[in-house]
Amino acid sequence: MIERTPVSQAIARQLQEMIQSGKLSSAERLPSQRVLSEQLGVSRPSLREALMTLETLGLIRTYPGRGTFVTDPQDMPAANSTQWRYTDDYGMADVFEVRLLLEGQLARHAAETSTLDDISLLTAATDKMEAAWAQGDLIANVDEDLEFHQIIAGKSRNSLLLQTYTSLSAMVMETQRQPIPFTALDRMASSIAEHRAIIAALNARDADAAQTAMVEHIRNTAACAGISI
Amino acid sequence: MIERTPVSQAIARQLQEMIQSGKLSSAERLPSQRVLSEQLGVSRPSLREALMTLETLGLIRTYPGRGTFVTDPQDMPAANSTQWRYTDDYGMADVFEVRLLLEGQLARHAAETSTLDDISLLTAATDKMEAAWAQGDLIANVDEDLEFHQIIAGKSRNSLLLQTYTSLSAMVMETQRQPIPFTALDRMASSIAEHRAIIAALNARDADAAQTAMVEHIRNTAACAGISI
Repeated sequence: MIERTPVSQAIARQLQEMIQSGKLSSAERLPSQRVLSEQLGVSRPSLREALMTLETLGLIRTYPGRGTFVTDPQDMPAANSTQWRYTDDYGMADVFEVRLLLEGQLARHAAETSTLDDISLLTAATDKMEAAWAQGDLIANVDEDLEFHQIIAGKSRNSLLLQTYTSLSAMVMETQRQPIPFTALDRMASSIAEHRAIIAALNARDADAAQTAMVEHIRNTAACAGISI
Repeated sequence: MIERTPVSQAIARQLQEMIQSGKLSSAERLPSQRVLSEQLGVSRPSLREALMTLETLGLIRTYPGRGTFVTDPQDMPAANSTQWRYTDDYGMADVFEVRLLLEGQLARHAAETSTLDDISLLTAATDKMEAAWAQGDLIANVDEDLEFHQIIAGKSRNSLLLQTYTSLSAMVMETQRQPIPFTALDRMASSIAEHRAIIAALNARDADAAQTAMVEHIRNTAACAGISI
């Protein structure tokens, strides 16, 4: 697994663990960011980043004037109600549309260039993604999902296409977090099956099938986040 | 017409005019860059940029150890023999492939959003491009071509797609200069006809036709530069 913004990811996982273990209980109001950063011994900016990740994943929710609360599992947010970080610049649909274009083409290239080692790495990332979901580790789930898409991108024979995709990686990760609060068990099963369909197309060196499977997967993911593209 | 890197473009047009008027005659060796920058009263970096533009357009040619010469019209370069500025980073085919993807989608959007004013601007840019070619003004020809593609990009309803395209504009212009030395009169007539087919599709608000016409146009342009995509 590639480490991403390691400090805030580590804090987010620690808080996720506290929520799952009941140390932070459902409907409990979180301490202020000042107090929480002292308790955890971390900087305020890293804590803020971690809280934003947890909020996007649906584990906590902030109510203006009341504070931040652990989400009651009965009280899942309605689609489109999580925080989208890039609102001032781009819509979520814009990012999904650009992903469709670029990743569809990247999957074509990967069908021509992937080795058996790459297939193994993609399978391992998908297995870990599935296991993370089963354990309720949403942060690891998203990380392994990004890993899967980055391995495919890395097989491109077009360095400009890869660089264009890489420049979007923070936004790509955000579009991978967004659907999580609305993802039921059967949708995650479908998403994992879609990953395996992409792997099968790459393994068969079928560029058309790889592009079609990737486009379908991103379109379904977007739909889960309430976006029709 | 949008001004681009105005100083070096102005120098390039001045030199182009000197070549066309015979002040710099065919097969004549150009003065050194030091002497030429003094004669024209311009900086060395701006002159170098202008000479690179002229070389890409096929108007001059540098022979290592011998110097830079005005190209003999009988002695057009073979395809792929002009200078490609981005060799260290990307291949020309890479840039054309990314253009196909992005500009195809941008044309789709433009079919949904173009107004009659936009259609007039696109027609004017294409008319000026045709006139510039007829007058042998290759620099203005490329500028109007870029203007055409930028107007279409500017009609996108996806700000991320537009920003991604805009970030490539220097490379896009370079792919528009590259085919010029190999462009015969009939190929330029085809290129102009392709522009008008794109305009017709936009005017008819036909997204599929607009994308198809744009992809076809970029593919033909690439083929003219010796690139098969």
